[in-house]
Amino acid sequence: MTVPEIMVYSTKQCMYCNNLKAWLAQNNIPYHAIDVGEDPVAAREMIDLTGQRGVPVIVIDGEVIVGFDRPRIEALLNIDKGKDIPADHELIIIGSGAAGLSAALYSGRKGLETLVIGGVRGGMITRTADIENYPGFYRISGESLMRLFADQAEDAGAVILDDVVTDLSVRDGTFVVETLSGRVFTAKSVIAASGRTPKLSGVPGEAELFGKGVSICTTCDGPLFKGKRVAVYGGGNTAAEMALEMSNIAAVVYLISRSPLKADLVTIERLKEKKNVVIMTGVVITGLHGEGVLTAVETAPRQDLANTTRLPIDGLFLGLGLTPNSAVFSGVVGMNSVGEIFVDENCRTDVPGLFAAGDVTSVKGKQLGIAVGDGIKASLAAYEYLRK
Amino acid sequence: MTVPEIMVYSTKQCMYCNNLKAWLAQNNIPYHAIDVGEDPVAAREMIDLTGQRGVPVIVIDGEVIVGFDRPRIEALLNIDKGKDIPADHELIIIGSGAAGLSAALYSGRKGLETLVIGGVRGGMITRTADIENYPGFYRISGESLMRLFADQAEDAGAVILDDVVTDLSVRDGTFVVETLSGRVFTAKSVIAASGRTPKLSGVPGEAELFGKGVSICTTCDGPLFKGKRVAVYGGGNTAAEMALEMSNIAAVVYLISRSPLKADLVTIERLKEKKNVVIMTGVVITGLHGEGVLTAVETAPRQDLANTTRLPIDGLFLGLGLTPNSAVFSGVVGMNSVGEIFVDENCRTDVPGLFAAGDVTSVKGKQLGIAVGDGIKASLAAYEYLRK
Repeated sequence: MTVPEIMVYSTKQCMYCNNLKAWLAQNNIPYHAIDVGEDPVAAREMIDLTGQRGVPVIVIDGEVIVGFDRPRIEALLNIDKGKDIPADHELIIIGSGAAGLSAALYSGRKGLETLVIGGVRGGMITRTADIENYPGFYRISGESLMRLFADQAEDAGAVILDDVVTDLSVRDGTFVVETLSGRVFTAKSVIAASGRTPKLSGVPGEAELFGKGVSICTTCDGPLFKGKRVAVYGGGNTAAEMALEMSNIAAVVYLISRSPLKADLVTIERLKEKKNVVIMTGVVITGLHGEGVLTAVETAPRQDLANTTRLPIDGLFLGLGLTPNSAVFSGVVGMNSVGEIFVDENCRTDVPGLFAAGDVTSVKGKQLGIAVGDGIKASLAAYEYLRK
Repeated sequence: MTVPEIMVYSTKQCMYCNNLKAWLAQNNIPYHAIDVGEDPVAAREMIDLTGQRGVPVIVIDGEVIVGFDRPRIEALLNIDKGKDIPADHELIIIGSGAAGLSAALYSGRKGLETLVIGGVRGGMITRTADIENYPGFYRISGESLMRLFADQAEDAGAVILDDVVTDLSVRDGTFVVETLSGRVFTAKSVIAASGRTPKLSGVPGEAELFGKGVSICTTCDGPLFKGKRVAVYGGGNTAAEMALEMSNIAAVVYLISRSPLKADLVTIERLKEKKNVVIMTGVVITGLHGEGVLTAVETAPRQDLANTTRLPIDGLFLGLGLTPNSAVFSGVVGMNSVGEIFVDENCRTDVPGLFAAGDVTSVKGKQLGIAVGDGIKASLAAYEYLRK
């Protein structure tokens, strides 16, 4: 078998890029790395090749794949990483972010046979460049910290499978878990630690232009919009932080918010000091323009939606908040009106053997340290349940 | 004013020793340090001077003080560290362990005016030599990790006062807090994070011989019993781990347990491999002997208490479990039958404005990571309460 030629176009702080590279390294697959945040010529080459500005891009023997599309990459490289994982388990943890990996560390140390299944190893926090509020670390990147979490969990004996759970059911007290890659597992107990996902806007054309100018991650895709015009959509802390970040990269940043800004006062003050940030409140995005690549957004005052204006931009970053990844638990376990799984103070749900931790739960605070603590609680509760 | 001559007798891993030294350093007070774990002649000197084997011992211009008796040391050195702290606060956190310091980090970052009051900076976990289950650290000493926690909290703006809360009351919705050193503070909200304390045995003579052969901390005082005969009292994981630790230091270790050993099987197996460990189950300690220093314990079969035996030993380590430090909250807030404060999944109690986190709560798992997560929850809940 000849070794395929593999090129990876990436930026330094992009989570999916680093996950892709880590995954290639784990599988001993050699590749050429090109940093399009540093090399404008390569960036142009990538944009010409793919007609879009999202990273990572992987080219395998001439075949171009945008994003870390693991199943397609596995198929092209003819590998099946999880095939030696048995079907039946004591504990399956759904989600490999901070909550899932903390639960896995404890379960592994307790000697529970544990399988972790998650689409993005490390979860949402890997998108955060600087964490300053996790006790014990003055400053660390989400990427680095989550690599430590994953290594610790694996060293404790947990098996981590990079896959996405698409269905969960309970049959005779046994949990049956199906994944995107078509695998079926069973477990005596389950911890739901599937986190949250950034909300989409619902503006027509959004799906088609996603990754082609529309993005949810300034830290990942931001560097590709150097000197360009971009918009950030949203009015809370997330959007304000994204606008601040982009103000150091883009020529102009439009911060478009449907309502008055709800971000912290200190952040709003910092935004107002930026000369290249235009704050538009009470404004709605009603449409997107672009053939293959975003070229403009259509905006209108919230009170006068028919009165639209066309605003030419190269990038639109969505900062609209987050929604719990609880669809697969729907109908199985009790949730609140926004789809968060109800837990008690020990991370038990209303289903025996099913526990939950982290951003997918009804716990108010969505913080790394809370995900860690509740991941540990869920693991101890699962242990108690299994040993009884 | 002449600089007093100060000698500190200590061992390397003793929490109170390190707290004492850190406190002296913070106050720019020079001292001579003597490691009695390393230097047998100095150890002899200290035992002769004090008639006991507990560390730290501090000698200030010839006056001998056993233990980190801060009020007495402050009086001798004529300092009053907390005198510039105002009386009224937005938030008082009672306890400066992992839960309290994590809460303080978040409260400080949120701009809440926060006072932390705790007798042992860093709390119980500072007694743990190696922590391997806090996500993000492969291995770190409790002492080092808690120093990081305290530094982070102070950098975030929290003020930490080394003092002990002796009374809490609520007057017209304001919390009134009194301390051992006689200070009185008020707060609009309070976080209870006072942790747990090792249980005493209740055997007659225990109080008189405490620190004079009777100890609760093998990590602190263990090195002073090199080549001696010691007993550990208890049958759970705590006692078993203490016996294992002492088996590497002492000549003989008697593990005395009232019931069959309840420690993990793997720990019991490791104990049984130790040739100098004698396991005595179904045995009760009925009395202590010694004039000024422990010389023997009196034991009896649990089923035949009158049939006592005198067992000559030099040290007795209590490994009887832990009891919540909730006495000052008694009558103020709802607790379970063992005195743990009831909390919901957001660390709220049944008293508005009063929140709780860590080992003092009804949460089942007593773990560092859980204390961190719940400390953060309590801080966010206090913030929400104060801003409404």
